[in-house]
Amino acid sequence: MGGAVRIGILGTGVVGQTLGGKLVELGHEVKLGSRTSANEKAAKWVGQHGSRASQGTFAEAASFGEMVFNCTSGMVSLEALRSGGSANLAGKVLVDVANPLDFSHGMPPTLSVCNSDSLGEQIQRAFPDAKVVKALNTMNAGVMVNPSSVPGDHDVFICGNDAGAKSQTSDLLRSFGWRTIVDLGDISGARGVEMLLPLWLRLMGTFKTATFNFHIART
Amino acid sequence: MGGAVRIGILGTGVVGQTLGGKLVELGHEVKLGSRTSANEKAAKWVGQHGSRASQGTFAEAASFGEMVFNCTSGMVSLEALRSGGSANLAGKVLVDVANPLDFSHGMPPTLSVCNSDSLGEQIQRAFPDAKVVKALNTMNAGVMVNPSSVPGDHDVFICGNDAGAKSQTSDLLRSFGWRTIVDLGDISGARGVEMLLPLWLRLMGTFKTATFNFHIART
Repeated sequence: MGGAVRIGILGTGVVGQTLGGKLVELGHEVKLGSRTSANEKAAKWVGQHGSRASQGTFAEAASFGEMVFNCTSGMVSLEALRSGGSANLAGKVLVDVANPLDFSHGMPPTLSVCNSDSLGEQIQRAFPDAKVVKALNTMNAGVMVNPSSVPGDHDVFICGNDAGAKSQTSDLLRSFGWRTIVDLGDISGARGVEMLLPLWLRLMGTFKTATFNFHIART
Repeated sequence: MGGAVRIGILGTGVVGQTLGGKLVELGHEVKLGSRTSANEKAAKWVGQHGSRASQGTFAEAASFGEMVFNCTSGMVSLEALRSGGSANLAGKVLVDVANPLDFSHGMPPTLSVCNSDSLGEQIQRAFPDAKVVKALNTMNAGVMVNPSSVPGDHDVFICGNDAGAKSQTSDLLRSFGWRTIVDLGDISGARGVEMLLPLWLRLMGTFKTATFNFHIART
């Protein structure tokens, strides 16, 4: 990742806006995608982030990006990515930040897929020509783009089938300030990091803050 | 936990033997329980650990212990505890160290229960008069009893419905050398810590060692 890149972000929630803001700050061009091209949250975000920020439909954002981030809610990610369009994702790095949290049965949410499969794998199977990299799904949005907000050593996990895509994603993560990037191998590693969510949610309740992160201590 | 305690350990595998050895070393009396009173692994362990070590059936170990550890394989834990006997567990702290890993479909194992339930909860429901505390299931046996084998700060998670039982378990954990004990609340916290296993197994494959542990970095 030598210089500025065009990045499409699917999803206009806190995660999409926060990642998008950081990427603009780092000099990249970012298009925030949603169901409609006139999404109000996206419009407000664009107004706050200057000339490198824009908005559009899922398909416009996916087409715009040399690299695409899935920041939609995990329960609707596959649908949003289908709106984005296979052809618009083909050959591109697709960083999947989503968690398949199902809030429909009350709190705490459960995972709509886990154990013998994962959302990351579902996305890779549905979009075989995209280079899916699971990353950043194990922490709060503020921590994603500002790792030093949590003191001490802590880690970001990545996994995916394409080494080049993981390398490109790692470069971007380092530009956010990440020092320890743990590569879990192929995209089936998404099972383990998505299954961290029940503990993450429990810890947030215990600590009464989302400003924490996982670290693997080792020799 | 002022002084020496009688402890029953169900399970004669590496976890049971390692925890049992540490507890004997700390001055406690330990009876290792298995299906048969003449289990060879238990007999060898007893021979190595002196007069405070003994062996017996699951029922004899459960009856012997003022405190009981479930160190059986998670797939057979409920059956082993039933052999131990409800009456022998009633009113006692039952520390559940097991993980419901199902290896019958090949590698990696899946969890036989997860997401909306956990082995810890199943055990508490099956033995309502026992005070179940989930603890130590997120690390290798060697790390359980020798936390300083992993450098830096790292944590042990506990959860359970009975505050006194968690306090007693925490005292024992501190005697093992644990400094950061993260209390996740009631026994439903077992979901999160059991669901760490897929990531734990993946990390063991990545690092080619089991000498690592989780730490929660936070402000």
